[in-house]
Amino acid sequence: LTHVLAANDVIRIGSALFAATGAPADQARLVAEELATSSLMGHDSHGVIRIPEYVELVERGTIIPGAAPRIERTSGGTALVDCAWNFGAVGAHFAMDVAIELARGNQISCVVTRRCNHVGRVGAYVQKAAGRDMVAIAACNSPLHGHFVPPWGGIEGRLGTNPIAYAAPTGGEPILADLSTSVAPEGKIRVYKNQGKAVPDGWIVDAQGHPSTDPTAFYGPPRGALLPLGGPAGHKGYALGLLAEILCGPLAGLATADSAAFGNGLCFLVFDPQAFGPIQQFKSLVDATVLYMKSSGRSGGDREVLVPGELEFRTRQQRLREGIPVDDPTWEAIQQCARRLDVDLVALESG
Amino acid sequence: LTHVLAANDVIRIGSALFAATGAPADQARLVAEELATSSLMGHDSHGVIRIPEYVELVERGTIIPGAAPRIERTSGGTALVDCAWNFGAVGAHFAMDVAIELARGNQISCVVTRRCNHVGRVGAYVQKAAGRDMVAIAACNSPLHGHFVPPWGGIEGRLGTNPIAYAAPTGGEPILADLSTSVAPEGKIRVYKNQGKAVPDGWIVDAQGHPSTDPTAFYGPPRGALLPLGGPAGHKGYALGLLAEILCGPLAGLATADSAAFGNGLCFLVFDPQAFGPIQQFKSLVDATVLYMKSSGRSGGDREVLVPGELEFRTRQQRLREGIPVDDPTWEAIQQCARRLDVDLVALESG
Repeated sequence: LTHVLAANDVIRIGSALFAATGAPADQARLVAEELATSSLMGHDSHGVIRIPEYVELVERGTIIPGAAPRIERTSGGTALVDCAWNFGAVGAHFAMDVAIELARGNQISCVVTRRCNHVGRVGAYVQKAAGRDMVAIAACNSPLHGHFVPPWGGIEGRLGTNPIAYAAPTGGEPILADLSTSVAPEGKIRVYKNQGKAVPDGWIVDAQGHPSTDPTAFYGPPRGALLPLGGPAGHKGYALGLLAEILCGPLAGLATADSAAFGNGLCFLVFDPQAFGPIQQFKSLVDATVLYMKSSGRSGGDREVLVPGELEFRTRQQRLREGIPVDDPTWEAIQQCARRLDVDLVALESG
Repeated sequence: LTHVLAANDVIRIGSALFAATGAPADQARLVAEELATSSLMGHDSHGVIRIPEYVELVERGTIIPGAAPRIERTSGGTALVDCAWNFGAVGAHFAMDVAIELARGNQISCVVTRRCNHVGRVGAYVQKAAGRDMVAIAACNSPLHGHFVPPWGGIEGRLGTNPIAYAAPTGGEPILADLSTSVAPEGKIRVYKNQGKAVPDGWIVDAQGHPSTDPTAFYGPPRGALLPLGGPAGHKGYALGLLAEILCGPLAGLATADSAAFGNGLCFLVFDPQAFGPIQQFKSLVDATVLYMKSSGRSGGDREVLVPGELEFRTRQQRLREGIPVDDPTWEAIQQCARRLDVDLVALESG
């Protein structure tokens, strides 16, 4: 059974629930908009499904609504931002706003975070920068309990799926990439598990390090591992995941193996293309690069050459028209949250 | 037949030959040292083999010895460097020196290049930054004739093998990664071709886009293509290669599909860890991260967990003791260069 919600209804419902947990109205809305956008763009694992999860994290004291993110230290084009354990999206948007502002003054900036909760779709923040005519790169790490990915040559998880995202402005929608440095994000294995299906070859190993297609061999216990991006060239995925870890962990003064850590670490890099030439020239050159990619012969009859983000922007258009599918357990959990928090869902749905 | 040269002999021979083409002594030595270091670290495709190639590029007017690299424009933490078509290593070292200096003032810097010849091993430049207690990331692109890599879903080359390199200082040797965003660098296919061997599955397609293991199907004509990193997740390798292209092409004001372009484009990012905390704290945290990686169980009896660069530093130690193997065609080409340039090789070899 699937419930279909209009994006605006998701935003209204999420805003009301987060506000009922104690979040200021603007921050409640920002988090709800972020989750609605993730669902609109097809990233369901970072979308509506997180509304009840975030409510529970507030109830458990993990998320502190209204806590004020602040710049802990800044010099030159850099800043270390304390996200104060507010919603991850509140901290991450604050950090990206700082990075964009620093890039206006220094043409290049680097912002790293501490005490940041789950940030959701990392692409959201670089997408924001591209909307301000900036190029941005983001790296994200996870703490010990999310270390699903072994080093190359190893079998025990030592790194998160550590996504790297980037965005660049064009004449139209930005180029927008958001990729885990493992062969797949952990959420995709969870989907196979929930559906009782085998995962593709080459994704996971069991706790003994043997190749497996059984998602329960990954989740254990004992837990298996999710392989780094690259297959036979997995040393490259490992190197990229380790780069994200260095930028989000040690650079921010945080230990990789800290067993008490939770939430996400972020490193944002923002480039002002106007440092090197007029912004219109940059956008025209990127547009030409996109056309050049698309001029390649195709590998299959109906297989299209896309640039990163293109599929997500199409899904957004479709779901703005047709609504966002919400599975039954998620809709049930949202209704339970509403009852606990005394929020009237019926009054919020436009119907 | 293999000739074995001591690293110092490679430097003496290379310096003498490059100086004989008109390079100032310090620049001739810098280029020769760079090639010797690449060979020492096991990157033979970017090492001694390039000495006769570079001599020929000077003779053809592609490399302009002694031409002065300069900062074309600079603002905040950024600079656009004109490498003036000197040897690529001269331009790239100049650009990295600018980036390190900018990072001292701004804690984060970004330098892009124009008019830069073949830069060799991209890892060399980030390694230099790590030696100055900086973290550095480099991206590198290639012009049209080096577009071996198709976009995801395509079959015709539209991107170079666009390496991404990074280095971070530790208590010992730096972490040093240098990876093409294709499944393998083009030079490795050349080695298979020269040996008359099949390349591994999943590396190349022929001109019709069909999977192949025949290196001659890759080189053509008609030319095939070298697949992006990631196998079934090749959209990720494509996204990373496209990122390198955006940073080295459009950001520097250069068109991706310019058929007259040659040489390499570079984008250097340099981070001063002291922006966020004491340098010793950063190095200790990275050392702890390395130990944590190595604490993973191993995937095979004698398969070791390494960090990026570790194998290269071991090879360097070995080749400093045992010398650098130089194949017969390369040694013959070096002797021909020496005769043309009236350089006495015998006097240069320590024997």
